[in-house]
Amino acid sequence: MGVSQTTSSAPQSPGSRTRLSPEQRREQLLDLGVRLLATRSLDELSIDSLAEEAGISRGLLYHYFGNKQDFHEAVVRRAADDLIAQTAPPDEGDPAERLLVSMAAYVDYVVANHQGYLSLVRAAAGGNETLRQIYEEARSALNGRVFREDDRGTVVPDTPATRLAVRGWSAMVEELVLSWIDDDRGLTREQLIELLASALPALVAVVPA
Amino acid sequence: MGVSQTTSSAPQSPGSRTRLSPEQRREQLLDLGVRLLATRSLDELSIDSLAEEAGISRGLLYHYFGNKQDFHEAVVRRAADDLIAQTAPPDEGDPAERLLVSMAAYVDYVVANHQGYLSLVRAAAGGNETLRQIYEEARSALNGRVFREDDRGTVVPDTPATRLAVRGWSAMVEELVLSWIDDDRGLTREQLIELLASALPALVAVVPA
Repeated sequence: MGVSQTTSSAPQSPGSRTRLSPEQRREQLLDLGVRLLATRSLDELSIDSLAEEAGISRGLLYHYFGNKQDFHEAVVRRAADDLIAQTAPPDEGDPAERLLVSMAAYVDYVVANHQGYLSLVRAAAGGNETLRQIYEEARSALNGRVFREDDRGTVVPDTPATRLAVRGWSAMVEELVLSWIDDDRGLTREQLIELLASALPALVAVVPA
Repeated sequence: MGVSQTTSSAPQSPGSRTRLSPEQRREQLLDLGVRLLATRSLDELSIDSLAEEAGISRGLLYHYFGNKQDFHEAVVRRAADDLIAQTAPPDEGDPAERLLVSMAAYVDYVVANHQGYLSLVRAAAGGNETLRQIYEEARSALNGRVFREDDRGTVVPDTPATRLAVRGWSAMVEELVLSWIDDDRGLTREQLIELLASALPALVAVVPA
């Protein structure tokens, strides 16, 4: 959106704040919310904590986001968009290489945003319908990439059965990365990424034709 | 426990009820709770609904189970025990055959207890710590089987890295079965079971040594 951002969570000075339009200001607050979500759960991401970090009043935050539920949804949607953008496969390379790059970005994203990612997974699984929908949309976007075809072919041939298999692979990837963060079992980041990427063709190979 | 059970959810006659000890009566009520959980979520499994199905007073149910949370935990623990028992691999056959039999029982269990299973998965993922613990214990018991060694060998060699891989496989199995129930994508029950079982060695083959 062309909004100038700082990586610090310090309050903006009044001078820099006044240059932003309401829309830009809202975008900036969303970015701050996503950054806070990296190290805390969704439950811990309160309007109060964001107001304090942003150095503005609670009342102004409610003006931008309505209520806590709307605020959480907006932050999670932004986080999901970030995940999709950051894990975009490169244009270069054959399908297997592009999958490897994408998996590396996924691992790095979950490591960097562990608490927020975990709480999204739990909120989605735990019955919050809107968060589940955001989660499912993000997963569909991520999964859909392995079926994308170009002149170098696809990672996975697109059939109903392989669509099912990729859903399973995706659940496995999520579990493996979250478990690996808890306890790496001696696997390096590179070994984990290699495992995630090579598991897909291994799985597709046993899907009934 | 040697308790005589009926597959019907009709109230017991007063005559049959009086022969049971309090412990037997509690076991019988737990079995009824598990049966009800097959077709409804945990949220829908109220003390009231169980009292009505069992033909006894709410007060008596509170006497057996304390409160709703304790009641839910007891029912879910029983359901998890049932799952572990019903999916026990046979003594006969080589490791791959035994895995196939166990996977078939798992698929049949989830199909027969769909609503309750789904709500357990969601409750465990969604942050109920006690239900998460019951779920994790059940999963550990199920996963542990693939490492069990006998004179015909193991399904999977037991290393830290394969332990991690089996966690991922197990998440994949759960996702595949639940997704297949929603939409079978043209896969028969037998093809699904074959996919679940053959995915394990396929995955283990790509685990770094």
